[in-house]
Amino acid sequence: MRLSQFHLATVKEVPADAEVISHKLMLRAGMIRKLASGLYTWAPLGLRVLRKVEAAVREEMLRAGAIEMLMPSVQPRELWEETGRWEKFGGQLLKIKDRKEQEFCYGPTHEEVITDFARNELKSYKQLPLNFFQIQTKFRDEIRPRFGVMRAREFLMKDAYSFHVTPESLGETYKVMYDAYSRIFTRLGLEFRAVDADTGAIGGSASHEFQVIADSGEDAIAYSDASPYAANIEKAEALAPSIERPSPSAELARVATPTQRTIEEVTALLGVPAAHTVKTILVRGREGLVALCVRGDHEVNEVKASHLPELPDESELASEDEILAATGTRPGFIGPVGLPANIPVIVDRSAAVLADFVCGGNQDGTHYTGTNWGRDAQISRVADIRKVVEGDPSPDGRGTIRFARGIEVGHIFQLGQKYAEAMGAGVLDDQGKMRTMYMGCYGIGVSRIVAAAIEQRHDDAGIVWPEAMAPWRVAVCVINPKNDPVVTEAAESLYQSLSQEGIDTVLDDRGLRPGPMFADMELIGIPHRVVVSARGLESGTFEYRARNETEARNVTREELFGLLG
Amino acid sequence: MRLSQFHLATVKEVPADAEVISHKLMLRAGMIRKLASGLYTWAPLGLRVLRKVEAAVREEMLRAGAIEMLMPSVQPRELWEETGRWEKFGGQLLKIKDRKEQEFCYGPTHEEVITDFARNELKSYKQLPLNFFQIQTKFRDEIRPRFGVMRAREFLMKDAYSFHVTPESLGETYKVMYDAYSRIFTRLGLEFRAVDADTGAIGGSASHEFQVIADSGEDAIAYSDASPYAANIEKAEALAPSIERPSPSAELARVATPTQRTIEEVTALLGVPAAHTVKTILVRGREGLVALCVRGDHEVNEVKASHLPELPDESELASEDEILAATGTRPGFIGPVGLPANIPVIVDRSAAVLADFVCGGNQDGTHYTGTNWGRDAQISRVADIRKVVEGDPSPDGRGTIRFARGIEVGHIFQLGQKYAEAMGAGVLDDQGKMRTMYMGCYGIGVSRIVAAAIEQRHDDAGIVWPEAMAPWRVAVCVINPKNDPVVTEAAESLYQSLSQEGIDTVLDDRGLRPGPMFADMELIGIPHRVVVSARGLESGTFEYRARNETEARNVTREELFGLLG
Repeated sequence: MRLSQFHLATVKEVPADAEVISHKLMLRAGMIRKLASGLYTWAPLGLRVLRKVEAAVREEMLRAGAIEMLMPSVQPRELWEETGRWEKFGGQLLKIKDRKEQEFCYGPTHEEVITDFARNELKSYKQLPLNFFQIQTKFRDEIRPRFGVMRAREFLMKDAYSFHVTPESLGETYKVMYDAYSRIFTRLGLEFRAVDADTGAIGGSASHEFQVIADSGEDAIAYSDASPYAANIEKAEALAPSIERPSPSAELARVATPTQRTIEEVTALLGVPAAHTVKTILVRGREGLVALCVRGDHEVNEVKASHLPELPDESELASEDEILAATGTRPGFIGPVGLPANIPVIVDRSAAVLADFVCGGNQDGTHYTGTNWGRDAQISRVADIRKVVEGDPSPDGRGTIRFARGIEVGHIFQLGQKYAEAMGAGVLDDQGKMRTMYMGCYGIGVSRIVAAAIEQRHDDAGIVWPEAMAPWRVAVCVINPKNDPVVTEAAESLYQSLSQEGIDTVLDDRGLRPGPMFADMELIGIPHRVVVSARGLESGTFEYRARNETEARNVTREELFGLLG
Repeated sequence: MRLSQFHLATVKEVPADAEVISHKLMLRAGMIRKLASGLYTWAPLGLRVLRKVEAAVREEMLRAGAIEMLMPSVQPRELWEETGRWEKFGGQLLKIKDRKEQEFCYGPTHEEVITDFARNELKSYKQLPLNFFQIQTKFRDEIRPRFGVMRAREFLMKDAYSFHVTPESLGETYKVMYDAYSRIFTRLGLEFRAVDADTGAIGGSASHEFQVIADSGEDAIAYSDASPYAANIEKAEALAPSIERPSPSAELARVATPTQRTIEEVTALLGVPAAHTVKTILVRGREGLVALCVRGDHEVNEVKASHLPELPDESELASEDEILAATGTRPGFIGPVGLPANIPVIVDRSAAVLADFVCGGNQDGTHYTGTNWGRDAQISRVADIRKVVEGDPSPDGRGTIRFARGIEVGHIFQLGQKYAEAMGAGVLDDQGKMRTMYMGCYGIGVSRIVAAAIEQRHDDAGIVWPEAMAPWRVAVCVINPKNDPVVTEAAESLYQSLSQEGIDTVLDDRGLRPGPMFADMELIGIPHRVVVSARGLESGTFEYRARNETEARNVTREELFGLLG
């Protein structure tokens, strides 16, 4: 492409409503333009990137045996009534009435339509498994669209839906999709993690989020530094320490901590490390209060605690009055020693292996030292109820937990029979019996990937595209203030040669001065810049600079092709 | 592609609501499935064809220098208010209210959005000309959706919009688009005509429709059998005959035609050819009645007549009472001889060169023979006011007019300044003066092309795809009732070899009997069928049949690759 025949429109000003760096850079680079709240035009430069992502996604989906189709974006209300989602989906569902007052929505997702297709098309187990996908514009009427295409209302999505006779078959395709997603983000050149995710309201038995790592990400991830393990921080398992609990060696002793209520204050006073203390919080259980004990340097994980049989799904902290009534003590001095017998004591795995530890005295202004489980305090249950911390061993036994922030760009689910059941989608099995199908669904936010990549890869000068996503891999810049035909011809010849080698190249023949020209190429993130100038031609070299290097260097034509080939 | 890993779902029954052959065949072949009125899912087989059309369109647009972008499908009401089309567009505009009660539409076309983009992006004449295009899903809320994807509500369209400082520049890009469209339909293998079209309500100075020729088409076309000339029949010019009018050789004589009112009756009675008679009709002009005279074998063209200065834009026939009052004669006996002087006589070019002709006697029950212009009847104006007929010379001077029916699949317009004016889209010219831009717009109905191709190319067995549109070019069919591994391997090997040659091939490994298998391949229109069977392998041949041939023949492997290469 010759830039003089393209429409590149970079701008210096950053619009006031752009909050995140990807939004700012996409506007400044002229990749997108806002039409209305949450609605963006993909200008030519942006579309080049979007199409590269789309092509990579399509290629890997086909390679994984998925079959492409295309469903309407406009969907009839009746189907959504069958699954109850016409109401349940909430305000994000953009509802439409046509000229005959029939009700439709602009599809935010296609479970209903594909399940309707499947129940009409699929008759026999012999046709299964099948995995259909489409790449299509979707609409979610976000209450607060923001961050440009990161959370736009209209967006491009790849959605896939698989159909199975057995959960085992679903599990196999799920694994195939997991691998395909990993290949997609790898080939796009993105640092990412496949995160074990809570399926939440969607239901089903397994789910992974694919998160692009970026400091600005909304999601907190715990991952292993030596394996593919990753999980939402809330869901990451804290392993039981591999040590046995030491035998008691100290006597239980009550010490005065008149004003020391926090772990920091108590450890400072007593000169013990926080890891040698136990903190106790009281929450409302299904039948009265429940005590949760974790090490002083750990935090209770409410998501994990909510899975305890003693607690309801959404448990709340006990109030100061409740605590006082149950224990006669104020918060800050609660501990497991001598608690009333009707309060179960749930102890985190790490706290359960402590001996001779410090804990609250169950009497205002006091703590115990030399506390030991069994001898001084009873354990009702040991469980994983704490948040993981950096440095914890990875739950898969390989490496150490680190934290990162991520942007969700893909999500795979085992839906099970939820939709097939609601909509009556079955096939005959080998006994001639009707069987409700099992389903998986697999989404990728194609347009969101573009923004997420920028969040991960940028510097002060602009975007730093990975090669696979760049609008062009190489920019040939012409410095030719005197309109020297030799320089023009050399640049043209280099551009032609690179293009003929299949190297996606842009020729910047706009006639700009070097400063603005280089600034543009850096802003739009072209991985390789080659400068053709009269001086370079004299010495038989081109000036080359990689976008992620700070220095330019002179290279011969052969060296250049070697670098780019 | 192996069919066992695809989802091919042909059906025998034709749904009752399918009226046209393309709709029937697309349903039977399993290319599309209906979701709701005017909303169709593109099943995997259909999408393969749609994507091939899309790719051809994109490639030729890029080759023609157009720049791809992508605008939102959902558009804000405010923009449509600026051009007045929020109301004027009518019921086809699907209006939407979002959760904040803001009004939008699902874009049926994008003049407003692109003009808004251009007025924000373009500042200087130096940036022009520019031609932007997108390939995108559109929605028109048809009052009566029908014919499957031919007139669906949701459809895939390529729309392009060009911007210019001068009408000359617009004319140049218009020509480039005309040529690009011609290349697109040529490479898709379709018989088509670029038809000079009345721009009608859209305005502007030039417009061509690209029509795929098919007997079932809604539009009537006149075209030359020896040049690219084509026009809507209503618009095709009838040239003036190249002969001079002969001198009179007969006397004017009134003859009795007591019951003969029609040309057929009069010519039968008098034994003269219809081409030697003149028929006269009286219409309401701007100031009283006007007589229109055409040859007896011709018909008045109301569109052309409406352009006469004597007639209003929508002229009507005079009533019997008006005719009687003005001439004292009943319809059927009106002629140009002795008409009242206040009735102008407009004579078609072909009628104006007749001598010694027959015409109405302006007296009930009589006609004249031997009539001559000038001597017996006065001509107020000679004009082209008749419909062309097959056999007329082509208006471009090359070849003879033929008639055909067509399906509109593309339309290019010179919009002029209509939208740019309404929305204030201008650039600075070389004098620093603000100039309203000129615009062109260029549409192709991508999904409609698929249906139009089937209307043009089908037979009793099904679809007959041109090579460029076929879901696969070649089908390798395996006849292997005994599951002979040699046959299986030979078929697999042939499939692999063809695919490696870049020949888009499908392997029918579903294990069907030959009858249903061949019927499927014919129904879905695969251009080349190759049969691998034990008997063929024994003789070292494959059975080959082209979809558009009636006989199969045995060919060697080398011959086969020669045929398909």
